[in-house]
Amino acid sequence: MGESGTRTPRERYRAQVQEEIKRHAWGQIATAGASALSLNAIAKQMGMSGPALYRYFANRDELITELVRDAYRSLADTFAARAEAGTDLGGLADALRRWALDDPQRYFLVYGTPVPGYRAPEDTARIAAEIMAHLLDACAAEHPAPSSALGRALAFWTRLHGVLSLELAGHFTGMGFDPAVLYADEVRALGGQWG
Amino acid sequence: MGESGTRTPRERYRAQVQEEIKRHAWGQIATAGASALSLNAIAKQMGMSGPALYRYFANRDELITELVRDAYRSLADTFAARAEAGTDLGGLADALRRWALDDPQRYFLVYGTPVPGYRAPEDTARIAAEIMAHLLDACAAEHPAPSSALGRALAFWTRLHGVLSLELAGHFTGMGFDPAVLYADEVRALGGQWG
Repeated sequence: MGESGTRTPRERYRAQVQEEIKRHAWGQIATAGASALSLNAIAKQMGMSGPALYRYFANRDELITELVRDAYRSLADTFAARAEAGTDLGGLADALRRWALDDPQRYFLVYGTPVPGYRAPEDTARIAAEIMAHLLDACAAEHPAPSSALGRALAFWTRLHGVLSLELAGHFTGMGFDPAVLYADEVRALGGQWG
Repeated sequence: MGESGTRTPRERYRAQVQEEIKRHAWGQIATAGASALSLNAIAKQMGMSGPALYRYFANRDELITELVRDAYRSLADTFAARAEAGTDLGGLADALRRWALDDPQRYFLVYGTPVPGYRAPEDTARIAAEIMAHLLDACAAEHPAPSSALGRALAFWTRLHGVLSLELAGHFTGMGFDPAVLYADEVRALGGQWG
């Protein structure tokens, strides 16, 4: 497919239908979970036949992969933009929190309970690796000791995921503290531990 | 229902059928996810009619609640036994890791992606609070400064959940490090940060 400006009408139409299918898919994930995603149900909602829809996504797993790819791509782009603006780990932590709270379904699709029977293809791992590369760069820039950049990046990822995923799942409700403060404390501790 | 020893045959039978239903439910969760849990499908697998099964669990949410309750109860009992044996935070961390790896489905049902449309009833929150109480006690015992016991317990919970949930979901596969070592590093950092 060419650049957006040079697409044929047919290509534009195809891209529009794909986006519409994905919107319906997110709706299904919100109401029934990713494992219950059904191409036939989406076709029905869109007034298409099943076979017509299968020309866009051959099966459930292809559709999930496209959503996973979009999600990772969106986070990788967010981190890339911050990195280009010269942000530090604190800035990446802010961006991650905003990205997670902005769309909890998207967060859980990539970082939550694995979808039974689904295996993400290799190329999604490459986008995930881009995300990690931004973390590693930021870690190495703040404390130039390459041997431990991985350890710092892993602590950043696992600790902030720990707070965000429990917060988004509602585990902190009624516990009498502000998850944003806990998150900020963890970001501060990450800086202090290796400061 | 009386103690196990004083149950009537009818009560024992009912308890056995309930256990069997729950086993089938875990099987369905493993293959299709908790949101796809179907009482009718379980009835079919067990050679029962739907209405016969509904005498044990009125609907999907009641069945999920029973599984959530079992899961929390199992972790609360594990922590209680450790606490009685005089264990410290490191011991609770070991117990948590063993409990999580022992049954990832169980771990994700309570700490993973929320099941769409399902809301856990109040009494499961009480068992979750028991688990937190053991953490708070262990934190207070190690560093007797009551004001920060909550902060330490939250760091324990979120950091170890961060490592365990990403590990169990396969995010560390191929990254070239041992998740057990990362977990141990985090447990050590938790001790050091407030040591």
